[in-house]
Amino acid sequence: MPYIELGNDAPGIIGLLRYRPETGRVLSELAEVLLRGDNTLPRGERELIASYVSTLNGCRFCAMSHGAFAAAQLSGGEPVVAEACSAPDTADISDKLRALLRVAAAVQRSGTAVTPEDVAAARKAGATDTEIHDTVLIAAAFCMFNRYVDGLSTTTPDDPALYAHRAAHVVTHGYLP
Amino acid sequence: MPYIELGNDAPGIIGLLRYRPETGRVLSELAEVLLRGDNTLPRGERELIASYVSTLNGCRFCAMSHGAFAAAQLSGGEPVVAEACSAPDTADISDKLRALLRVAAAVQRSGTAVTPEDVAAARKAGATDTEIHDTVLIAAAFCMFNRYVDGLSTTTPDDPALYAHRAAHVVTHGYLP
Repeated sequence: MPYIELGNDAPGIIGLLRYRPETGRVLSELAEVLLRGDNTLPRGERELIASYVSTLNGCRFCAMSHGAFAAAQLSGGEPVVAEACSAPDTADISDKLRALLRVAAAVQRSGTAVTPEDVAAARKAGATDTEIHDTVLIAAAFCMFNRYVDGLSTTTPDDPALYAHRAAHVVTHGYLP
Repeated sequence: MPYIELGNDAPGIIGLLRYRPETGRVLSELAEVLLRGDNTLPRGERELIASYVSTLNGCRFCAMSHGAFAAAQLSGGEPVVAEACSAPDTADISDKLRALLRVAAAVQRSGTAVTPEDVAAARKAGATDTEIHDTVLIAAAFCMFNRYVDGLSTTTPDDPALYAHRAAHVVTHGYLP
């Protein structure tokens, strides 16, 4: 049960966005620009970074949500997402995405944990400066979203069908209300 | 030196906001609504929460920036900010703000680290649901901003005069470009 009276029973971050529309609007815009805005990183790969960081932070709602959004937009579907989130070093993903996941994992620990070697490895695997920038910001943003969702003890449904249903909506319509 | 070529030499997050205006605009709006929007928590107290979380995350640029913005808007000025960021349990601040700083410290560790007891203590000290919500979101947002700033290895000036100068601007004009 959430720590505060939300006035609605929507799960995870959805209930929080409705509770406080002043911040909800800006947070929705942030998700939209980071995960769906113009970018050389495919949307599915950006959602995978979001799901991976959420997994590392132990945030089930965000990990399952963005895992479903990634699965709906990556050619490998759910098996690749599950593999990448649990064992990125050996997952069937590109070397560039693997290197970006390493950068994201460092960001999840701390901003100061990202090393010049992490960045050089991503660049060597083909990542551009903008892709490295966006990976750092997506990983950092999910360190916010995850803490927001769990810090207020919002509810996390268990039924995978619910996340798949929301994925169909987000893939078509995006994050803006 | 930043890990990516920013095309400008502005320090900390300022250089990042200019490098990528698409995300910069939304991040500036988030700071504006969280730290300066209508709220029963005074702006100085919200800036103090931001500086405290940044201190815990070891992000010098954000800790010094928001410490200066807090000092400019709290009656106790810089000494109270320094005391609250290093020893909040004994600092000369209200019991409500002390309880909210405890919630913020839990969020900094992890969303799942916030306990019902932390929230109950804040409520007992007079915090409203909205104030608890905003404290969690401010603390979570600085877990993002701090990682963004340090994860890309932006520059951190040492001269306190620079932060005081920026404080005068932010207090008057806010965070929007």
